[in-house]
Amino acid sequence: MKVGILGAGQLAQLLAHSAYSLGLETVCFTNNPDVPAARFSPLYIGNIHDSKDLIGFAEQCDVITFENENIAPEIIEFLSQYKPVLPDQKAIKVAQDRFIEKTFLQTLNIPTPCFAAIDSLTDLNTAISNIGLPALLKTRRFGYDGKGQVLLHDTHLAANAWDAIDRVPAILEKWVTFEHEVSLIAARNQTGATIFYPLIKNTHKQGILRFSESPFTNPDLQKLAEYHMQLVFDALDYVGVMAFEFFVKESQLIGNELAPRVHNSGHLTIEGFNASQFENHLRSILDCPLIKPILRASTKMTNIIGILPELTIQDCQNIHFYNYGKTPKPGRKLGHIIKYL
Amino acid sequence: MKVGILGAGQLAQLLAHSAYSLGLETVCFTNNPDVPAARFSPLYIGNIHDSKDLIGFAEQCDVITFENENIAPEIIEFLSQYKPVLPDQKAIKVAQDRFIEKTFLQTLNIPTPCFAAIDSLTDLNTAISNIGLPALLKTRRFGYDGKGQVLLHDTHLAANAWDAIDRVPAILEKWVTFEHEVSLIAARNQTGATIFYPLIKNTHKQGILRFSESPFTNPDLQKLAEYHMQLVFDALDYVGVMAFEFFVKESQLIGNELAPRVHNSGHLTIEGFNASQFENHLRSILDCPLIKPILRASTKMTNIIGILPELTIQDCQNIHFYNYGKTPKPGRKLGHIIKYL
Repeated sequence: MKVGILGAGQLAQLLAHSAYSLGLETVCFTNNPDVPAARFSPLYIGNIHDSKDLIGFAEQCDVITFENENIAPEIIEFLSQYKPVLPDQKAIKVAQDRFIEKTFLQTLNIPTPCFAAIDSLTDLNTAISNIGLPALLKTRRFGYDGKGQVLLHDTHLAANAWDAIDRVPAILEKWVTFEHEVSLIAARNQTGATIFYPLIKNTHKQGILRFSESPFTNPDLQKLAEYHMQLVFDALDYVGVMAFEFFVKESQLIGNELAPRVHNSGHLTIEGFNASQFENHLRSILDCPLIKPILRASTKMTNIIGILPELTIQDCQNIHFYNYGKTPKPGRKLGHIIKYL
Repeated sequence: MKVGILGAGQLAQLLAHSAYSLGLETVCFTNNPDVPAARFSPLYIGNIHDSKDLIGFAEQCDVITFENENIAPEIIEFLSQYKPVLPDQKAIKVAQDRFIEKTFLQTLNIPTPCFAAIDSLTDLNTAISNIGLPALLKTRRFGYDGKGQVLLHDTHLAANAWDAIDRVPAILEKWVTFEHEVSLIAARNQTGATIFYPLIKNTHKQGILRFSESPFTNPDLQKLAEYHMQLVFDALDYVGVMAFEFFVKESQLIGNELAPRVHNSGHLTIEGFNASQFENHLRSILDCPLIKPILRASTKMTNIIGILPELTIQDCQNIHFYNYGKTPKPGRKLGHIIKYL
């Protein structure tokens, strides 16, 4: 069996690494041969907007998945004519647009921060008076690691914020003073079976995930998070791993973001559990029985951002160090460290 | 840090796979680009008898190790002028010759089957009358997976057996009617720190390892095996992972074979423990603190020999399936399956 992966960054790299012990082969679609996934997977070098390349890629695969939800749904639809693409375009359409995503959560009665769609400075000013400040102005699409976000404290700076995000379609979200940020990693396979990892506690700085710790033990919140995730899974008839980020405030969960793929906060599942998010994602999309996660060790993940530490294996007592092999650049995720707690 | 590996078979493949989560790079020396390790590691294509190739390889590495002890000690000595090679040639010299190996164990007062060096049919007949039958005639060098071995039941077949092993230097070993075969996987780093995995119970058929199960729980035998291994480690001032195969007979251990490298019976340490034999081997040769093994799960490994099963991921409930990517051939190890018990 060969799994095609759209994208060849660190998530594809970790999927390819994990595929080995399931007897699977992988091939990653990319336009650039100098990518993290090249360490563990053959690449298919092509242009994602060229239908011939997409067909050539699909012919090599038994099933196709992706590492990034910012793919035009038309591409997923096109590939689906040739091979199953999982998760499917329904999930992509929801997760790649913050307004559609938040509206979707609202329809499922999952709490979210107050939000409004912003298509003009007038919209922004109206939303500010309705929602109040502080609030986050976020582009509807293509935001990640804090990119495309402005925190607004002052009504007079609305025009500056609107300029700062290049006046693209956006949403304004009420700032939530949270106690914790947590994520739920879960998987659903084609027969509808699901598994849920224990909640993971996350720490962001400047919009970039810095630390994740597992397990975050709170049986009530765990139950609530799984309930919310199940609503999402059922609504989308979802197949694959999904991450659901929440704010914890006054013993309630406020839905922040869905990621229809393996997720940075779930990297610690490799060391922390009997089966990682990568293994359960592969099992999901191949319609295989999932592995119910059993905690093996409490772990803390630290992302390596911008600069690779001068870390040698001699420093690696009780840690694992993943180096994605990327060129260092400010704000870029270059690797992560797992420490057993 | 880059680890050079002499050889590019499945042991090199598994070492390269494991190196990733320690932030390490690898390069494997081979004369053939179509090898298992190519899936996870750059290769250095060269001729091991060409000093220019060896120097070119050594220049790429920070430290060099190997996946097979059947390397001429001169090659190890030559490479050692350029980069550390670990384990070193002392271990190789002992482990690659069954007579030297058994004699070495004898000098350490570690029980072995009765044995004698055989250089002629006369030697063989003398040894048969001294040792008795049944006995195994084994080539001193290059034997693996039951190759180069003849089981002798009948004195009259001595000449046939001697012909069957091409009259090369050999040993005759008294056949041991054992209750179990077990292996101890252990590691020692440059500062002399050691770790020991619980004993693993092994089942061979036609000289090839078929199954390994962990843990084999017997505190007295565990203590004894660790005592024997420590004697070997100290005598060789050894650095790296070593496997020590024993027969269990009447609550005693009889030393059978040393492997100065990661070992087939230790593959289950990936799933069964917090740190695998591959990780501890890499830590040893880089003089890093070792990870004391903590059992995470009872596991059984089944080697896939000769024919790849028609196994899909759908069959993989509760198992891992490693496919080394080799061309099927009778008697060839093609992969292994790990089942959680």
